[in-house]
Amino acid sequence: MKTGIKGHDTDPVSNIAVGYDLLGFALDAPGDEIVVRFREEPGLVITQVTGAGGKLPRAVDKNTAGVAAMALLRHLGEERRGIAMEVHKKMPFGSGLGSSAASAVGAVVAVNELLKRPLEKRELLPFAMQGEHVADGAWHADNVAPSLMGGMIFIRDNETLDVHRVHVPEGLYAVVVHPKVEVLTRSARSILREEVSLEQHVRQSGNLGGLLIGLFRSDFELIRRSLHDHIIEPQRASLIPHFRAVQEAARQAGALGCSVSGAGPSVFPLCPHIPLDGHIGQ
Amino acid sequence: MKTGIKGHDTDPVSNIAVGYDLLGFALDAPGDEIVVRFREEPGLVITQVTGAGGKLPRAVDKNTAGVAAMALLRHLGEERRGIAMEVHKKMPFGSGLGSSAASAVGAVVAVNELLKRPLEKRELLPFAMQGEHVADGAWHADNVAPSLMGGMIFIRDNETLDVHRVHVPEGLYAVVVHPKVEVLTRSARSILREEVSLEQHVRQSGNLGGLLIGLFRSDFELIRRSLHDHIIEPQRASLIPHFRAVQEAARQAGALGCSVSGAGPSVFPLCPHIPLDGHIGQ
Repeated sequence: MKTGIKGHDTDPVSNIAVGYDLLGFALDAPGDEIVVRFREEPGLVITQVTGAGGKLPRAVDKNTAGVAAMALLRHLGEERRGIAMEVHKKMPFGSGLGSSAASAVGAVVAVNELLKRPLEKRELLPFAMQGEHVADGAWHADNVAPSLMGGMIFIRDNETLDVHRVHVPEGLYAVVVHPKVEVLTRSARSILREEVSLEQHVRQSGNLGGLLIGLFRSDFELIRRSLHDHIIEPQRASLIPHFRAVQEAARQAGALGCSVSGAGPSVFPLCPHIPLDGHIGQ
Repeated sequence: MKTGIKGHDTDPVSNIAVGYDLLGFALDAPGDEIVVRFREEPGLVITQVTGAGGKLPRAVDKNTAGVAAMALLRHLGEERRGIAMEVHKKMPFGSGLGSSAASAVGAVVAVNELLKRPLEKRELLPFAMQGEHVADGAWHADNVAPSLMGGMIFIRDNETLDVHRVHVPEGLYAVVVHPKVEVLTRSARSILREEVSLEQHVRQSGNLGGLLIGLFRSDFELIRRSLHDHIIEPQRASLIPHFRAVQEAARQAGALGCSVSGAGPSVFPLCPHIPLDGHIGQ
Protein backbone atom coordinates (compact mmCIF):
# COMPACT_ATOMS: atom_id res chain seq x y z
CA MET A 1 0.00 0.00 0.00
CA LYS A 2 1.26 3.44 -0.89
CA THR A 3 1.36 6.12 1.74
CA GLY A 4 2.43 9.73 1.47
CA ILE A 5 0.90 12.61 -0.42
CA LYS A 6 0.01 12.44 -4.06
CA GLY A 7 0.21 15.41 -6.36
CA HIS A 8 -1.95 14.31 -9.22
CA ASP A 9 -2.09 16.85 -11.96
CA THR A 10 -3.44 16.44 -15.41
CA ASP A 11 -1.71 16.92 -18.70
CA PRO A 12 -2.35 20.17 -20.45
CA VAL A 13 -3.01 20.98 -24.10
CA SER A 14 -1.14 24.10 -25.11
CA ASN A 15 -0.61 26.47 -28.04
CA ILE A 16 -4.33 26.28 -28.81
CA ALA A 17 -4.43 27.05 -32.52
CA VAL A 18 -3.91 30.81 -32.58
CA GLY A 19 -2.65 31.03 -29.01
CA TYR A 20 0.97 30.00 -29.52
CA ASP A 21 2.71 30.23 -26.12
CA LEU A 22 -0.37 32.03 -24.77
CA LEU A 23 -3.32 29.70 -24.39
CA GLY A 24 -3.64 26.24 -22.88
CA PHE A 25 -6.20 24.11 -21.13
CA ALA A 26 -6.14 21.18 -18.75
CA LEU A 27 -7.42 17.74 -19.65
CA ASP A 28 -9.37 15.58 -17.20
CA ALA A 29 -6.91 12.76 -17.88
CA PRO A 30 -4.27 11.49 -18.14
CA GLY A 31 -2.08 13.05 -15.47
CA ASP A 32 1.22 12.23 -13.86
CA GLU A 33 1.28 10.91 -10.35
CA ILE A 34 3.84 12.17 -7.87
CA VAL A 35 4.13 10.53 -4.46
CA VAL A 36 6.09 12.26 -1.71
CA ARG A 37 6.83 11.26 1.88
CA PHE A 38 9.20 12.40 4.59
CA ARG A 39 12.39 10.42 5.15
CA GLU A 40 15.02 10.46 7.89
CA GLU A 41 18.00 11.69 5.86
CA PRO A 42 18.03 15.38 4.89
CA GLY A 43 17.39 16.54 1.32
CA LEU A 44 15.13 15.57 -1.57
CA VAL A 45 15.67 12.33 -3.48
CA ILE A 46 13.77 10.72 -6.32
CA THR A 47 13.44 7.06 -5.45
CA GLN A 48 11.48 5.85 -8.44
CA VAL A 49 10.51 6.93 -11.95
CA THR A 50 7.99 4.76 -13.80
CA GLY A 51 6.29 5.07 -17.17
CA ALA A 52 9.13 6.91 -18.87
CA GLY A 53 10.86 3.94 -20.46
CA GLY A 54 14.04 4.70 -18.53
CA LYS A 55 14.45 7.98 -20.36
CA LEU A 56 14.04 10.34 -17.41
CA PRO A 57 16.93 11.09 -15.03
CA ARG A 58 16.50 10.39 -11.31
CA ALA A 59 19.02 13.09 -10.39
CA VAL A 60 16.96 15.79 -8.62
CA ASP A 61 18.68 18.68 -10.40
CA LYS A 62 18.04 17.18 -13.84
CA ASN A 63 14.50 15.92 -13.32
CA THR A 64 11.57 18.25 -14.01
CA ALA A 65 9.70 17.19 -10.87
CA GLY A 66 12.89 17.35 -8.81
CA VAL A 67 13.85 20.83 -9.95
CA ALA A 68 10.32 22.15 -9.38
CA ALA A 69 10.14 20.65 -5.89
CA MET A 70 13.59 21.96 -4.96
CA ALA A 71 12.71 25.46 -6.19
CA LEU A 72 9.67 25.43 -3.90
CA LEU A 73 11.59 23.95 -0.95
CA ARG A 74 14.31 26.57 -1.33
CA HIS A 75 11.72 29.35 -1.37
CA LEU A 76 10.26 27.97 1.84
CA GLY A 77 13.67 27.61 3.46
CA GLU A 78 13.06 23.84 3.61
CA GLU A 79 15.77 22.61 1.25
CA ARG A 80 17.23 20.37 3.96
CA ARG A 81 13.90 18.63 4.56
CA GLY A 82 14.20 14.88 4.03
CA ILE A 83 11.72 14.01 1.28
CA ALA A 84 11.48 10.93 -0.94
CA MET A 85 9.64 11.36 -4.24
CA GLU A 86 8.25 8.90 -6.77
CA VAL A 87 7.39 10.02 -10.28
CA HIS A 88 4.84 7.95 -12.19
CA LYS A 89 4.44 9.15 -15.76
CA LYS A 90 1.12 8.40 -17.43
CA MET A 91 1.89 9.87 -20.84
CA PRO A 92 4.96 9.39 -22.96
CA PHE A 93 6.97 12.57 -23.19
CA GLY A 94 7.32 14.21 -26.54
CA SER A 95 3.56 13.83 -26.93
CA GLY A 96 2.81 17.52 -27.01
CA LEU A 97 0.60 17.07 -23.98
CA GLY A 98 2.86 18.97 -21.66
CA SER A 99 4.10 15.88 -19.92
CA SER A 100 6.95 17.76 -18.27
CA ALA A 101 4.55 20.44 -17.04
CA ALA A 102 2.33 17.79 -15.50
CA SER A 103 5.30 16.36 -13.58
CA ALA A 104 6.51 19.78 -12.46
CA VAL A 105 3.04 20.79 -11.27
CA GLY A 106 2.43 17.42 -9.60
CA ALA A 107 5.69 17.81 -7.70
CA VAL A 108 5.02 21.27 -6.27
CA VAL A 109 1.41 20.43 -5.40
CA ALA A 110 2.51 17.24 -3.63
CA VAL A 111 5.32 18.93 -1.69
CA ASN A 112 3.04 21.82 -0.74
CA GLU A 113 0.46 19.35 0.59
CA LEU A 114 3.11 17.40 2.48
CA LEU A 115 4.19 20.62 4.21
CA LYS A 116 0.54 21.41 5.03
CA ARG A 117 -0.05 24.05 2.35
CA PRO A 118 2.25 26.93 3.18
CA LEU A 119 1.32 28.42 -0.22
CA GLU A 120 -1.87 28.92 -2.20
CA LYS A 121 -2.12 26.81 -5.35
CA ARG A 122 -1.64 29.79 -7.62
CA GLU A 123 1.54 30.81 -5.80
CA LEU A 124 3.13 27.53 -6.84
CA LEU A 125 3.28 28.61 -10.47
CA PRO A 126 6.82 30.06 -10.61
CA PHE A 127 8.30 26.93 -8.99
CA ALA A 128 6.57 24.57 -11.40
CA MET A 129 7.80 26.81 -14.22
CA GLN A 130 11.39 26.27 -13.09
CA GLY A 131 10.84 22.54 -13.34
CA GLU A 132 9.48 22.68 -16.85
CA HIS A 133 12.27 25.01 -17.88
CA VAL A 134 14.75 22.16 -17.29
CA ALA A 135 12.84 19.97 -19.73
CA ASP A 136 12.56 22.24 -22.74
CA GLY A 137 14.73 25.26 -22.04
CA ALA A 138 11.90 27.69 -22.68
CA TRP A 139 9.91 29.80 -20.24
CA HIS A 140 6.26 29.73 -21.19
CA ALA A 141 3.35 29.03 -18.90
CA ASP A 142 0.81 27.70 -21.37
CA ASN A 143 1.36 24.15 -20.14
CA VAL A 144 2.16 24.70 -16.47
CA ALA A 145 -0.56 27.25 -15.68
CA PRO A 146 -3.56 25.22 -16.94
CA SER A 147 -2.12 22.03 -15.45
CA LEU A 148 -1.91 23.80 -12.07
CA MET A 149 -5.04 25.93 -12.15
CA GLY A 150 -7.33 23.79 -14.30
CA GLY A 151 -9.63 25.04 -17.06
CA MET A 152 -8.47 27.25 -19.91
CA ILE A 153 -5.76 29.78 -19.20
CA PHE A 154 -4.54 32.77 -21.19
CA ILE A 155 -1.03 33.99 -20.47
CA ARG A 156 -0.70 37.71 -21.11
CA ASP A 157 2.95 37.70 -20.22
CA ASN A 158 5.14 34.70 -19.64
CA GLU A 159 7.90 36.64 -17.95
CA THR A 160 5.79 38.05 -15.11
CA LEU A 161 3.40 35.05 -15.19
CA ASP A 162 0.40 37.28 -15.75
CA VAL A 163 -2.11 34.46 -16.26
CA HIS A 164 -5.89 34.58 -16.55
CA ARG A 165 -8.69 32.07 -16.56
CA VAL A 166 -10.82 32.16 -19.70
CA HIS A 167 -14.47 31.20 -19.73
CA VAL A 168 -15.06 27.75 -21.23
CA PRO A 169 -18.51 27.40 -22.79
CA GLU A 170 -20.75 24.61 -21.56
CA GLY A 171 -20.53 21.75 -24.03
CA LEU A 172 -17.06 22.44 -25.41
CA TYR A 173 -15.04 19.24 -25.57
CA ALA A 174 -11.55 18.32 -26.67
CA VAL A 175 -10.77 15.00 -28.32
CA VAL A 176 -7.09 14.18 -28.09
CA VAL A 177 -5.52 12.06 -30.80
CA HIS A 178 -2.07 10.84 -29.88
CA PRO A 179 -0.18 9.31 -32.80
CA LYS A 180 2.70 7.04 -31.90
CA VAL A 181 5.49 9.28 -33.09
CA GLU A 182 7.75 11.43 -30.98
CA VAL A 183 8.31 15.15 -31.55
CA LEU A 184 10.64 16.96 -29.18
CA THR A 185 9.70 20.50 -28.24
CA ARG A 186 13.23 21.68 -28.87
CA SER A 187 13.20 20.50 -32.48
CA ALA A 188 9.65 21.72 -33.08
CA ARG A 189 10.76 25.15 -31.89
CA SER A 190 13.91 25.19 -33.93
CA ILE A 191 12.05 24.82 -37.26
CA LEU A 192 9.97 27.96 -36.65
CA ARG A 193 10.82 31.03 -38.69
CA GLU A 194 11.89 33.93 -36.50
CA GLU A 195 9.84 36.47 -38.45
CA VAL A 196 6.18 36.65 -39.44
CA SER A 197 4.66 39.09 -41.87
CA LEU A 198 2.67 42.01 -40.49
CA GLU A 199 -0.28 40.68 -42.45
CA GLN A 200 0.01 37.24 -40.82
CA HIS A 201 0.33 38.92 -37.43
CA VAL A 202 -2.89 40.90 -37.95
CA ARG A 203 -4.77 37.87 -39.29
CA GLN A 204 -3.63 35.67 -36.43
CA SER A 205 -4.45 38.38 -33.86
CA GLY A 206 -7.91 38.64 -35.38
CA ASN A 207 -8.42 34.95 -34.82
CA LEU A 208 -7.03 35.08 -31.30
CA GLY A 209 -9.41 37.89 -30.39
CA GLY A 210 -12.26 36.07 -32.14
CA LEU A 211 -11.50 32.92 -30.17
CA LEU A 212 -11.45 34.75 -26.83
CA ILE A 213 -14.68 36.63 -27.61
CA GLY A 214 -16.25 33.37 -28.82
CA LEU A 215 -15.27 31.63 -25.58
CA PHE A 216 -16.58 34.46 -23.41
CA ARG A 217 -19.84 34.54 -25.37
CA SER A 218 -20.20 30.76 -25.87
CA ASP A 219 -20.43 31.50 -29.60
CA PHE A 220 -19.41 28.20 -31.18
CA GLU A 221 -19.59 29.53 -34.74
CA LEU A 222 -17.23 32.38 -33.90
CA ILE A 223 -14.89 29.87 -32.24
CA ARG A 224 -15.06 27.77 -35.40
CA ARG A 225 -14.16 30.70 -37.66
CA SER A 226 -11.33 31.68 -35.31
CA LEU A 227 -9.60 28.31 -35.02
CA HIS A 228 -7.26 28.86 -37.96
CA ASP A 229 -3.57 29.16 -37.23
CA HIS A 230 -1.75 30.87 -40.09
CA ILE A 231 1.64 31.03 -38.43
CA ILE A 232 2.72 28.03 -36.39
CA GLU A 233 0.63 25.17 -37.76
CA PRO A 234 1.73 25.46 -41.39
CA GLN A 235 5.33 25.18 -40.23
CA ARG A 236 4.76 22.20 -37.95
CA ALA A 237 2.15 20.24 -39.87
CA SER A 238 4.85 18.34 -41.74
CA LEU A 239 6.23 16.91 -38.46
CA ILE A 240 3.00 14.97 -37.94
CA PRO A 241 2.17 12.28 -40.49
CA HIS A 242 -1.28 12.70 -42.05
CA PHE A 243 -2.08 15.79 -39.96
CA ARG A 244 -4.02 17.54 -42.73
CA ALA A 245 -6.13 14.44 -43.40
CA VAL A 246 -6.96 14.08 -39.70
CA GLN A 247 -7.79 17.78 -39.46
CA GLU A 248 -10.06 17.63 -42.47
CA ALA A 249 -11.79 14.49 -41.17
CA ALA A 250 -12.34 16.14 -37.79
CA ARG A 251 -13.88 19.23 -39.42
CA GLN A 252 -16.06 17.06 -41.63
CA ALA A 253 -17.27 15.26 -38.52
CA GLY A 254 -18.36 18.53 -36.94
CA ALA A 255 -15.28 19.63 -34.99
CA LEU A 256 -14.87 23.40 -34.55
CA GLY A 257 -11.21 23.10 -35.38
CA CYS A 258 -8.31 20.71 -35.04
CA SER A 259 -4.87 21.85 -33.96
CA VAL A 260 -1.55 20.49 -32.87
CA SER A 261 -1.10 20.37 -29.09
CA GLY A 262 2.10 21.97 -27.94
CA ALA A 263 4.88 20.96 -30.26
CA GLY A 264 2.94 17.87 -31.41
CA PRO A 265 2.40 15.16 -32.36
CA SER A 266 -0.87 15.06 -30.39
CA VAL A 267 -3.71 16.82 -32.16
CA PHE A 268 -6.93 17.90 -30.54
CA PRO A 269 -10.19 18.55 -32.32
CA LEU A 270 -12.30 20.96 -30.27
CA CYS A 271 -15.90 19.85 -30.50
CA PRO A 272 -19.29 21.24 -29.64
CA HIS A 273 -21.28 18.86 -27.50
CA ILE A 274 -23.09 16.46 -29.79
CA PRO A 275 -26.05 14.65 -28.21
CA LEU A 276 -26.13 10.89 -28.72
CA ASP A 277 -28.97 11.17 -31.20
CA GLY A 278 -27.28 14.07 -32.99
CA HIS A 279 -26.14 14.06 -36.56
CA ILE A 280 -22.38 14.22 -36.67
CA GLY A 281 -21.03 16.27 -39.50
CA GLN A 282 -24.23 18.17 -40.19
CA MET B 1 -33.71 76.17 -42.19
CA LYS B 2 -32.24 72.86 -43.21
CA THR B 3 -34.55 70.05 -44.21
CA GLY B 4 -33.75 66.55 -45.27
CA ILE B 5 -32.28 63.68 -43.36
CA LYS B 6 -29.11 63.96 -41.36
CA GLY B 7 -26.70 61.08 -40.98
CA HIS B 8 -24.71 62.17 -37.99
CA ASP B 9 -22.03 59.72 -37.09
CA THR B 10 -19.21 60.19 -34.73
CA ASP B 11 -15.53 59.91 -35.38
CA PRO B 12 -13.90 56.68 -34.35
CA VAL B 13 -10.61 55.97 -32.62
CA SER B 14 -8.91 52.99 -34.23
CA ASN B 15 -5.85 50.77 -33.89
CA ILE B 16 -6.28 50.79 -30.13
CA ALA B 17 -2.74 50.15 -28.90
CA VAL B 18 -2.32 46.43 -29.51
CA GLY B 19 -5.31 46.14 -31.84
CA TYR B 20 -3.75 47.39 -35.07
CA ASP B 21 -6.43 47.11 -37.80
CA LEU B 22 -8.57 45.11 -35.37
CA LEU B 23 -9.97 47.27 -32.60
CA GLY B 24 -11.69 50.63 -32.63
CA PHE B 25 -14.25 52.57 -30.66
CA ALA B 26 -16.65 55.40 -31.34
CA LEU B 27 -16.36 58.80 -29.70
CA ASP B 28 -19.40 60.80 -28.53
CA ALA B 29 -18.13 63.75 -30.52
CA PRO B 30 -17.12 65.19 -32.91
CA GLY B 31 -18.92 63.66 -35.88
CA ASP B 32 -19.46 64.58 -39.49
CA GLU B 33 -22.87 65.77 -40.57
CA ILE B 34 -24.36 64.57 -43.82
CA VAL B 35 -27.61 66.12 -45.08
CA VAL B 36 -29.54 64.39 -47.87
CA ARG B 37 -32.77 65.30 -49.64
CA PHE B 38 -34.55 64.20 -52.78
CA ARG B 39 -34.18 66.34 -55.89
CA GLU B 40 -35.97 66.36 -59.26
CA GLU B 41 -33.06 65.36 -61.51
CA PRO B 42 -31.92 61.74 -61.39
CA GLY B 43 -28.67 60.66 -59.73
CA LEU B 44 -26.68 61.58 -56.63
CA VAL B 45 -24.87 64.90 -56.41
CA ILE B 46 -22.85 66.52 -53.66
CA THR B 47 -23.97 70.13 -53.47
CA GLN B 48 -21.78 71.31 -50.63
CA VAL B 49 -18.70 70.32 -48.65
CA THR B 50 -17.84 72.40 -45.60
CA GLY B 51 -15.13 72.12 -42.96
CA ALA B 52 -12.54 70.50 -45.22
CA GLY B 53 -10.67 73.62 -46.22
CA GLY B 54 -11.47 73.01 -49.88
CA LYS B 55 -9.41 69.81 -49.84
CA LEU B 56 -12.22 67.31 -50.47
CA PRO B 57 -13.57 66.64 -53.98
CA ARG B 58 -17.26 67.18 -54.69
CA ALA B 59 -17.24 64.58 -57.46
CA VAL B 60 -19.40 61.73 -56.20
CA ASP B 61 -17.04 58.99 -57.38
CA LYS B 62 -14.03 60.59 -55.65
CA ASN B 63 -15.69 61.62 -52.40
CA THR B 64 -15.83 59.15 -49.50
CA ALA B 65 -19.43 60.00 -48.67
CA GLY B 66 -20.40 59.93 -52.34
CA VAL B 67 -18.84 56.55 -53.02
CA ALA B 68 -20.40 55.01 -49.93
CA ALA B 69 -23.84 56.38 -50.76
CA MET B 70 -23.59 55.23 -54.39
CA ALA B 71 -22.53 51.73 -53.32
CA LEU B 72 -25.63 51.53 -51.16
CA LEU B 73 -27.92 52.99 -53.83
CA ARG B 74 -26.55 50.54 -56.40
CA HIS B 75 -27.17 47.63 -54.03
CA LEU B 76 -30.77 48.80 -53.61
CA GLY B 77 -31.24 49.30 -57.36
CA GLU B 78 -31.78 53.02 -56.66
CA GLU B 79 -28.77 54.50 -58.42
CA ARG B 80 -30.99 56.72 -60.56
CA ARG B 81 -32.70 58.24 -57.52
CA GLY B 82 -32.34 62.03 -57.48
CA ILE B 83 -30.53 62.85 -54.22
CA ALA B 84 -28.67 65.99 -53.16
CA MET B 85 -26.07 65.58 -50.42
CA GLU B 86 -24.23 68.05 -48.20
CA VAL B 87 -21.09 67.00 -46.33
CA HIS B 88 -20.18 69.00 -43.24
CA LYS B 89 -16.84 67.91 -41.80
CA LYS B 90 -16.31 68.54 -38.11
CA MET B 91 -12.76 67.23 -37.83
CA PRO B 92 -9.80 67.98 -40.06
CA PHE B 93 -8.81 64.93 -42.04
CA GLY B 94 -5.43 63.42 -41.41
CA SER B 95 -6.27 63.59 -37.69
CA GLY B 96 -6.22 59.87 -37.10
CA LEU B 97 -9.80 60.09 -35.93
CA GLY B 98 -11.23 58.22 -38.88
CA SER B 99 -12.65 61.34 -40.47
CA SER B 100 -13.25 59.55 -43.77
CA ALA B 101 -15.00 56.69 -42.00
CA ALA B 102 -17.30 59.16 -40.24
CA SER B 103 -18.28 60.68 -43.61
CA ALA B 104 -18.80 57.30 -45.25
CA VAL B 105 -20.93 56.05 -42.37
CA GLY B 106 -22.88 59.31 -42.16
CA ALA B 107 -23.66 59.04 -45.87
CA VAL B 108 -25.04 55.49 -45.82
CA VAL B 109 -27.02 56.10 -42.63
CA ALA B 110 -28.54 59.27 -44.09
CA VAL B 111 -29.44 57.68 -47.44
CA ASN B 112 -30.89 54.63 -45.69
CA GLU B 113 -33.07 56.91 -43.55
CA LEU B 114 -34.16 58.93 -46.58
CA LEU B 115 -35.29 55.71 -48.28
CA LYS B 116 -37.16 54.69 -45.11
CA ARG B 117 -34.64 52.15 -43.83
CA PRO B 118 -34.56 49.35 -46.39
CA LEU B 119 -31.54 47.93 -44.50
CA GLU B 120 -30.65 47.32 -40.87
CA LYS B 121 -27.84 49.52 -39.56
CA ARG B 122 -25.37 46.65 -39.42
CA GLU B 123 -26.08 45.75 -43.07
CA LEU B 124 -24.76 49.16 -44.11
CA LEU B 125 -21.20 48.20 -43.16
CA PRO B 126 -19.91 46.97 -46.55
CA PHE B 127 -21.13 50.12 -48.32
CA ALA B 128 -19.51 52.46 -45.83
CA MET B 129 -16.34 50.40 -46.22
CA GLN B 130 -16.31 51.10 -49.95
CA GLY B 131 -16.47 54.79 -49.21
CA GLU B 132 -13.55 54.70 -46.80
CA HIS B 133 -11.58 52.58 -49.24
CA VAL B 134 -11.51 55.55 -51.65
CA ALA B 135 -9.91 57.71 -49.00
CA ASP B 136 -7.03 55.55 -47.88
CA GLY B 137 -6.86 52.64 -50.28
CA ALA B 138 -6.99 50.07 -47.51
CA TRP B 139 -9.81 47.75 -46.46
CA HIS B 140 -10.05 47.66 -42.70
CA ALA B 141 -13.16 48.10 -40.63
CA ASP B 142 -11.67 49.38 -37.39
CA ASN B 143 -12.87 52.91 -38.15
CA VAL B 144 -16.07 52.27 -40.07
CA ALA B 145 -17.52 49.55 -37.84
CA PRO B 146 -17.36 51.45 -34.52
CA SER B 147 -18.49 54.66 -36.21
CA LEU B 148 -21.54 52.79 -37.53
CA MET B 149 -22.32 50.50 -34.63
CA GLY B 150 -21.09 52.58 -31.70
CA GLY B 151 -19.14 51.30 -28.72
CA MET B 152 -15.97 49.27 -29.02
CA ILE B 153 -15.67 46.87 -31.92
CA PHE B 154 -13.25 44.02 -32.56
CA ILE B 155 -12.74 42.96 -36.16
CA ARG B 156 -11.86 39.29 -36.42
CA ASP B 157 -11.56 39.45 -40.17
CA ASN B 158 -11.57 42.57 -42.30
CA GLU B 159 -12.24 40.70 -45.53
CA THR B 160 -15.51 39.08 -44.45
CA LEU B 161 -16.34 41.95 -42.05
CA ASP B 162 -16.61 39.57 -39.12
CA VAL B 163 -17.05 42.28 -36.47
CA HIS B 164 -17.95 41.96 -32.80
CA ARG B 165 -18.94 44.32 -30.04
CA VAL B 166 -16.63 44.23 -27.05
CA HIS B 167 -17.79 45.00 -23.53
CA VAL B 168 -16.71 48.46 -22.36
CA PRO B 169 -16.34 48.69 -18.59
CA GLU B 170 -18.32 51.29 -16.74
CA GLY B 171 -16.08 54.26 -16.06
CA LEU B 172 -13.64 53.81 -18.94
CA TYR B 173 -13.03 57.12 -20.68
CA ALA B 174 -10.94 58.27 -23.61
CA VAL B 175 -9.30 61.67 -23.71
CA VAL B 176 -8.42 62.68 -27.24
CA VAL B 177 -5.47 64.98 -27.80
CA HIS B 178 -5.33 66.36 -31.32
CA PRO B 179 -2.05 68.10 -32.13
CA LYS B 180 -2.14 70.49 -35.07
CA VAL B 181 -0.03 68.45 -37.42
CA GLU B 182 -1.23 66.34 -40.31
CA VAL B 183 -0.32 62.68 -40.84
CA LEU B 184 -1.76 60.92 -43.85
CA THR B 185 -2.75 57.30 -43.40
CA ARG B 186 -0.98 56.34 -46.61
CA SER B 187 2.37 57.66 -45.38
CA ALA B 188 1.89 56.25 -41.87
CA ARG B 189 1.28 52.85 -43.46
CA SER B 190 4.22 53.06 -45.80
CA ILE B 191 6.76 53.44 -42.99
CA LEU B 192 5.70 50.18 -41.32
CA ARG B 193 8.06 47.23 -41.60
CA GLU B 194 6.47 44.30 -43.41
CA GLU B 195 7.80 41.74 -40.96
CA VAL B 196 7.60 41.39 -37.20
CA SER B 197 9.58 38.96 -35.09
CA LEU B 198 7.80 35.90 -33.74
CA GLU B 199 8.69 37.15 -30.26
CA GLN B 200 7.04 40.53 -30.92
CA HIS B 201 4.02 38.74 -32.35
CA VAL B 202 3.62 36.62 -29.21
CA ARG B 203 4.15 39.59 -26.89
CA GLN B 204 1.67 41.74 -28.78
CA SER B 205 -0.88 38.90 -28.91
CA GLY B 206 -0.49 38.51 -25.17
CA ASN B 207 -1.38 42.16 -24.70
CA LEU B 208 -4.29 41.96 -27.14
CA GLY B 209 -5.74 39.00 -25.27
CA GLY B 210 -5.06 40.73 -21.95
CA LEU B 211 -6.86 43.84 -23.16
CA LEU B 212 -9.92 41.87 -24.31
CA ILE B 213 -10.08 39.87 -21.08
CA GLY B 214 -9.58 43.08 -19.09
CA LEU B 215 -12.45 44.75 -20.97
CA PHE B 216 -14.78 41.77 -20.49
CA ARG B 217 -13.91 41.59 -16.79
CA SER B 218 -13.75 45.36 -16.17
CA ASP B 219 -10.25 44.74 -14.81
CA PHE B 220 -8.61 48.16 -15.14
CA GLU B 221 -5.22 46.95 -13.90
CA LEU B 222 -5.12 44.21 -16.54
CA ILE B 223 -6.10 46.78 -19.17
CA ARG B 224 -3.27 48.99 -17.95
CA ARG B 225 -0.69 46.19 -18.20
CA SER B 226 -1.98 45.27 -21.65
CA LEU B 227 -1.90 48.71 -23.27
CA HIS B 228 1.64 48.39 -24.59
CA ASP B 229 2.11 48.27 -28.34
CA HIS B 230 5.47 46.76 -29.24
CA ILE B 231 4.96 46.73 -32.99
CA ILE B 232 3.20 49.72 -34.54
CA GLU B 233 3.69 52.50 -32.01
CA PRO B 234 7.51 52.40 -31.93
CA GLN B 235 7.53 52.83 -35.71
CA ARG B 236 5.03 55.69 -35.76
CA ALA B 237 5.92 57.58 -32.59
CA SER B 238 8.44 59.69 -34.48
CA LEU B 239 5.70 61.08 -36.76
CA ILE B 240 4.09 62.80 -33.78
CA PRO B 241 6.12 65.53 -32.10
CA HIS B 242 6.55 65.00 -28.33
CA PHE B 243 4.48 61.79 -28.35
CA ARG B 244 6.59 60.05 -25.72
CA ALA B 245 6.40 63.05 -23.38
CA VAL B 246 2.62 63.23 -23.73
CA GLN B 247 2.33 59.47 -23.17
CA GLU B 248 4.47 59.62 -20.07
CA ALA B 249 2.54 62.60 -18.70
CA ALA B 250 -0.76 60.80 -19.30
CA ARG B 251 0.48 57.71 -17.45
CA GLN B 252 1.78 59.82 -14.60
CA ALA B 253 -1.64 61.45 -14.37
CA GLY B 254 -3.33 58.08 -13.96
CA ALA B 255 -4.15 57.05 -17.54
CA LEU B 256 -4.25 53.31 -18.21
CA GLY B 257 -2.33 53.84 -21.41
CA CYS B 258 -1.86 56.36 -24.17
CA SER B 259 -1.77 55.36 -27.82
CA VAL B 260 -1.85 56.85 -31.26
CA SER B 261 -5.30 56.86 -32.86
CA GLY B 262 -5.32 55.40 -36.34
CA ALA B 263 -2.30 56.64 -38.20
CA GLY B 264 -1.99 59.64 -35.87
CA PRO B 265 -1.39 62.38 -34.98
CA SER B 266 -4.27 62.23 -32.48
CA VAL B 267 -3.39 60.39 -29.30
CA PHE B 268 -5.87 59.06 -26.78
CA PRO B 269 -5.14 58.31 -23.15
CA LEU B 270 -7.63 55.72 -21.88
CA CYS B 271 -8.58 56.63 -18.34
CA PRO B 272 -10.38 55.01 -15.47
CA HIS B 273 -13.13 57.18 -14.10
CA ILE B 274 -11.62 59.43 -11.49
CA PRO B 275 -14.11 60.93 -9.04
CA LEU B 276 -13.84 64.67 -8.53
CA ASP B 277 -12.31 64.21 -5.13
CA GLY B 278 -9.94 61.51 -6.39
CA HIS B 279 -6.19 61.77 -6.38
CA ILE B 280 -4.95 61.86 -9.93
CA GLY B 281 -1.76 60.00 -10.51
CA GLN B 282 -1.93 57.90 -7.36
